[in-house]
Amino acid sequence: MPLAARYTSARTLDTAPVPTPPPGPGEVELAPAYVGICGTDLHIFHGDMDARVSAPAVLGHEMSGRVVRVGPDVEGCRPGDAVTVMPLRWDDSCPACRSGHRHICQHLDFIGIDSPGAMQQRWIVPASTLVHVPAYVPLERAALVEPTAVAVHDVGRAGVCQGERVVVVGGGPVGVLIALVARDAGADVRVVELSAHRRALAAELGLITWDPTVDDVPDLVREWTGDAGADVAFEVSGAAAGVETAVEVLGVRGRLCLVAIHSRPREVNLHRFFWRELTLVGARLYDRSDFERAVVLVADGTIPADRLISKVVPLTEAPAAFQALEAGGDVMKILVDCTDDAQGAAV
Amino acid sequence: MPLAARYTSARTLDTAPVPTPPPGPGEVELAPAYVGICGTDLHIFHGDMDARVSAPAVLGHEMSGRVVRVGPDVEGCRPGDAVTVMPLRWDDSCPACRSGHRHICQHLDFIGIDSPGAMQQRWIVPASTLVHVPAYVPLERAALVEPTAVAVHDVGRAGVCQGERVVVVGGGPVGVLIALVARDAGADVRVVELSAHRRALAAELGLITWDPTVDDVPDLVREWTGDAGADVAFEVSGAAAGVETAVEVLGVRGRLCLVAIHSRPREVNLHRFFWRELTLVGARLYDRSDFERAVVLVADGTIPADRLISKVVPLTEAPAAFQALEAGGDVMKILVDCTDDAQGAAV
Repeated sequence: MPLAARYTSARTLDTAPVPTPPPGPGEVELAPAYVGICGTDLHIFHGDMDARVSAPAVLGHEMSGRVVRVGPDVEGCRPGDAVTVMPLRWDDSCPACRSGHRHICQHLDFIGIDSPGAMQQRWIVPASTLVHVPAYVPLERAALVEPTAVAVHDVGRAGVCQGERVVVVGGGPVGVLIALVARDAGADVRVVELSAHRRALAAELGLITWDPTVDDVPDLVREWTGDAGADVAFEVSGAAAGVETAVEVLGVRGRLCLVAIHSRPREVNLHRFFWRELTLVGARLYDRSDFERAVVLVADGTIPADRLISKVVPLTEAPAAFQALEAGGDVMKILVDCTDDAQGAAV
Repeated sequence: MPLAARYTSARTLDTAPVPTPPPGPGEVELAPAYVGICGTDLHIFHGDMDARVSAPAVLGHEMSGRVVRVGPDVEGCRPGDAVTVMPLRWDDSCPACRSGHRHICQHLDFIGIDSPGAMQQRWIVPASTLVHVPAYVPLERAALVEPTAVAVHDVGRAGVCQGERVVVVGGGPVGVLIALVARDAGADVRVVELSAHRRALAAELGLITWDPTVDDVPDLVREWTGDAGADVAFEVSGAAAGVETAVEVLGVRGRLCLVAIHSRPREVNLHRFFWRELTLVGARLYDRSDFERAVVLVADGTIPADRLISKVVPLTEAPAAFQALEAGGDVMKILVDCTDDAQGAAV
């Protein structure tokens, strides 16, 4: 039976064989190849999302893989196709869906959180979630399409334009992807990041970085922008201090795009929002056009996806990889290799 | 010499004769008729803005009046013209001005706060600040043009459209004006207000009101909108609880327009901004098009300005009026009558 990595309880992941039923009508069976470990997966691993996640739960929503079997009534894909999955299932009937915002459906099923994810050797998904990847793109890189789609969505929500000055607060994988997508849109970008390792990686990608423990970021922004302030800031850090910095660096009519999850309320300088007529926009997930754009950016190398991959571990070592990430350290993106070859052909 | 009401120190206003120099090049001498007392004037009176306001300071920026004398190089106005004043002087050179947002110039001179205001019998202003009022509009009503311009600006910043559901949190003068302007834009509006007096007045104007001490506002919004949430909320209360309510009532992609001044940071449920992709827009003051639109709305009766005026007091009684407002009570807008007749011809 195919193996799966399963969250069983706080700080515990196991690997176990799980049966795979044949794909039903409208479904497809995939063989996941590479699955990224995301911040949300770590929140689940930490036990923070037990109210939402039913253990044992197969995690994973940043993936690439191939079609294995196609269920009845499925058109447009064949066994062997290289694909990634936009892991959203909406109800098409709630007020959000009816107003055209299906990606934030009020009853959204986020596959990999609310239903089984990709960290397994075989995975059944609705055919509607498939996004094809050009055959020439290495599947390791294609696993970065999902977080790239997040970045594309965020840059779109912020309305970043050619020549604008953009500050990205938080230089983890999503922060760096936002910086790269914003740069591709013609923006002049600065990345604020605590970790020296992540700053070094961002710098290797040609991004200018600031260390908020040493640099006076608002001062540097004033100098950089001739006292105008930044046009756009992205809050990707999830920290209270990150919110403060993102608000403080913005100039008149600046836009703050809120990307990170802040599970508790944050103190926000609303007077600054009033005084400078700032805008705050929340950004969550992506829609299909963001995903398709992300495939293009990964495929054409605008996103140097391979440079963001710190490590690839076989599925059987996923539990250890989660433990290591939990402990912190110099890391960007870790991929779990779910291919049959990597597990010694457990299927 | 003409009389002026002057802020001298915390909780103290006096009236004193002040000399009026002749209008210089580009300037106009006005005889203010009616001047509204605004929340900001009360903040100054309370002593909260001593760092910004140089006492003795003549307050007042919501006004109507007539042109008395015209300085050299002034075109487009004549003695006797009925006018109101858009009390902004910008530097035309800062980054905000250069990007087209002169009303929030980084070195804005707000006339009536940063320089002498309208609560006096004679007032020198730049001719560029004048906005003509049709001769048939009673000057009492024209004193409401400035706060109406605030409301027009706010409704524009929020992008209120026909058929949208709008919650206004705070039913003081600006809140009611926002509700009326939003209703005129075709929105379905609810006003949340603590004061029974203000709720009754809003109800007389045909507005539906809720009392947050009795009504479960988020529940009522869910019922009203079929679980969709409101499209737009205006935070006009200035209270922490008002921010919370305004965030909570919004549906997916809802917009919160921040109108009130929150002098300290507020806890904001940023997770809700992320989850529902909400937008927060700060709105401050107005530009000339807002002001001109406000003149039309007051002139054609869309804004029943007379209904919002609780009381008119002569300039000599302005100090007592400030004291009374400071003490609270059942009041909406108080106007100070600066006409020569009202003071027994002190000029």
